[in-house]
Amino acid sequence: MVERRTPIPVSEAVQKVMNYAYNGPSETISLEETYGRYLGEDVVADHDVPHFHRSRYDGYAIIAKDSLKASLSNPVEFEVIEEVGAGFIGSKEVNDFQAVRIMTGAQIPDQCNAVVMFESTEEYEKNGHPFISITKPVAAGENMTYKGEDVKQGTVLLTKGTSINPGVRAVLSTFGYAKVKVIKKPEIGIYTTGTELLEIDEPIVPGKIRNSNGQMIQAQIERAGGQPHDLGKLADKFAECYQSISQALERFDFLITTGGVSVGDFDYMPAIYRKLGARVLFNKIAMRPGSVTTVAELNGKLLFGLSGNPSSCYVGFELFVRPVIQTYLNSSKPFLKKTRARLMADFPSNPFTRFVRSHVFFNENGLIASPTGLDKPNMISSLVEANALSVLPGRSEGFTRGEEIDVLLLCEESQDSEWSC
Amino acid sequence: MVERRTPIPVSEAVQKVMNYAYNGPSETISLEETYGRYLGEDVVADHDVPHFHRSRYDGYAIIAKDSLKASLSNPVEFEVIEEVGAGFIGSKEVNDFQAVRIMTGAQIPDQCNAVVMFESTEEYEKNGHPFISITKPVAAGENMTYKGEDVKQGTVLLTKGTSINPGVRAVLSTFGYAKVKVIKKPEIGIYTTGTELLEIDEPIVPGKIRNSNGQMIQAQIERAGGQPHDLGKLADKFAECYQSISQALERFDFLITTGGVSVGDFDYMPAIYRKLGARVLFNKIAMRPGSVTTVAELNGKLLFGLSGNPSSCYVGFELFVRPVIQTYLNSSKPFLKKTRARLMADFPSNPFTRFVRSHVFFNENGLIASPTGLDKPNMISSLVEANALSVLPGRSEGFTRGEEIDVLLLCEESQDSEWSC
Repeated sequence: MVERRTPIPVSEAVQKVMNYAYNGPSETISLEETYGRYLGEDVVADHDVPHFHRSRYDGYAIIAKDSLKASLSNPVEFEVIEEVGAGFIGSKEVNDFQAVRIMTGAQIPDQCNAVVMFESTEEYEKNGHPFISITKPVAAGENMTYKGEDVKQGTVLLTKGTSINPGVRAVLSTFGYAKVKVIKKPEIGIYTTGTELLEIDEPIVPGKIRNSNGQMIQAQIERAGGQPHDLGKLADKFAECYQSISQALERFDFLITTGGVSVGDFDYMPAIYRKLGARVLFNKIAMRPGSVTTVAELNGKLLFGLSGNPSSCYVGFELFVRPVIQTYLNSSKPFLKKTRARLMADFPSNPFTRFVRSHVFFNENGLIASPTGLDKPNMISSLVEANALSVLPGRSEGFTRGEEIDVLLLCEESQDSEWSC
Repeated sequence: MVERRTPIPVSEAVQKVMNYAYNGPSETISLEETYGRYLGEDVVADHDVPHFHRSRYDGYAIIAKDSLKASLSNPVEFEVIEEVGAGFIGSKEVNDFQAVRIMTGAQIPDQCNAVVMFESTEEYEKNGHPFISITKPVAAGENMTYKGEDVKQGTVLLTKGTSINPGVRAVLSTFGYAKVKVIKKPEIGIYTTGTELLEIDEPIVPGKIRNSNGQMIQAQIERAGGQPHDLGKLADKFAECYQSISQALERFDFLITTGGVSVGDFDYMPAIYRKLGARVLFNKIAMRPGSVTTVAELNGKLLFGLSGNPSSCYVGFELFVRPVIQTYLNSSKPFLKKTRARLMADFPSNPFTRFVRSHVFFNENGLIASPTGLDKPNMISSLVEANALSVLPGRSEGFTRGEEIDVLLLCEESQDSEWSC
């Protein structure tokens, strides 16, 4: 007799998993290694940026009011008393109608409050001394950046959980973070199950297929910010399976298995959960693909039982594993970004929520979601082009081309795709 | 006398650089290491997927026409002759009104052409033999996937230059690519210049700032798919600078310097280009920030002279270095994705094209571009939130809030931002 399972709504399943999500601890690494990692602490400005009045151009620093009467018919002359390169400090006091030749980024002398660009001056010598003249007034503050104009001391610039992009790296450099506290990557073990699975380097034989889920999930884990650990294929014997899973649960922060969660005769996972004493949070969800996605919990540690079908596995990962990884990484927004798009195909009605692998892109009508494959769980080819999941909720009428729907955006690192996400 | 430079349009500058862009060579690595890399060869299906008729569910394989007359009042009976798990092959010939118990993913016996799910059958025994009965007809092909239904042998599935995402990894696994040809990462040297620059672990002192460009560019190179090599700060002395740059040009595929390209008294780069015999492609662009971005070429090798101002440096990298890296990686679309968005601020008119660091997000009006900082080149804080550059072309009228403009999307690996790109 086949086991009858009661499906629960997707949102309820997500909530049940998120009850066990938690923020991971931090570790300290060197700034060079931080690309794509997540900040493990807030970063507060310990000094103004810039921390001195700074010239924005190569030119002459002057006292602005001296230029007030400058015009084409009345050039105003300034004596150039010294030169200050970026990184140096002027040594002389600047008096009225004196100027300091100054380079981009250099500190403005205390008495000055504006910079005239080279291009706006006439440069000449008198008695062996350099002079300039200008023919237009210069406003106070012109061509300079005031102390603190970019960042005021005490400003919280970055918060814990921020992902470290090039701009964040520039800020960390500015504030002297040669070493950076980042969130540890969650260590995630992956076991694949299935008598039908061949290793990737094995030749295909009748009835068997190569294992594609293991490598796919590893990449999904990397994309989500975790550290994958491929544990290979689970043994076919129950006792060995149980032993392997029990040990893996000790070693890793989360454990993922693929396959064996359905109601087939060789689906051992439910029995393993029972023997472990793990609490099954759900084993049937009102969604396609991935309806048999199972999540169990043992002493607060999550075991994700993803389906063995590639697309079900893919969707199950993004909906249930990803937000747990992102929460571990201290992200305040752990879920896939949801937005609206126009569906580019008709779909029949369905009683459950469908997550259709789609390619989203812009055209003159806004964001368009184009399904990348038929809605069958074993379509590997549909995953290559997918950069989003179209969400088609269960309802009695079908969906028509042009209808506006929700899409969940999968972040693709690829920048050369038509929609570079 | 300050040198007068003639600015050229941005598109012309990009074209001049792209004349020297080329496709990089490939190397072979193991599948585990391929995440985020770019394929170095086309992938053609060397077999159908699936390569056998496969059951989509746990159930019973039958000959469909036998079920034709099945109804509630006329249950049709089948003798269950054997069981086939996934990965196994049936050993018996199936005759009319016989069935094979079959698991998801298993090969359908040759004589059968449909699967009845467990849930749609009544299972019982007669004389110690297992039987089922069904009360609804089953169509040919139901609950099974035909050989080649996902992928036909000979199909070009992936092309050289495709970035390797989770779906691509699944395809590579399916076709046995335990080792994968990927494009080598271009090796890119970075020298920063500037007497005012402190190391990141040095305390700040008057007139000096910490070097933020080096780390920022390293992260930009990683984001674009290249391998950064931080060469530190160039010496202040011309002869040493020349020597360092000359040697770095030998070692790396591309060389980036920051600072020293303007017309200031300590801007040595133009003299270094001259001494090297490098041809300057341009040294002034009609754009802000980054107008002094300089690109030179020596024996076909590109030297990028980015501005020392953080935002100018950032924009100069994305506009000129990124497409060269992406071309090296064999991307067919090397430029930042361009799309339309509504500007969320007023901007005065300007004679040159502006690239305003912006945060783009969706609201009920579509894509919105919100500038993340004032349009000043030294605003480090504006780079953190930027996930796009708003393009404001030079023109005589200003830009008004709500106007539709072009935006260039910067791909952020961050998925937890409001717009998770």
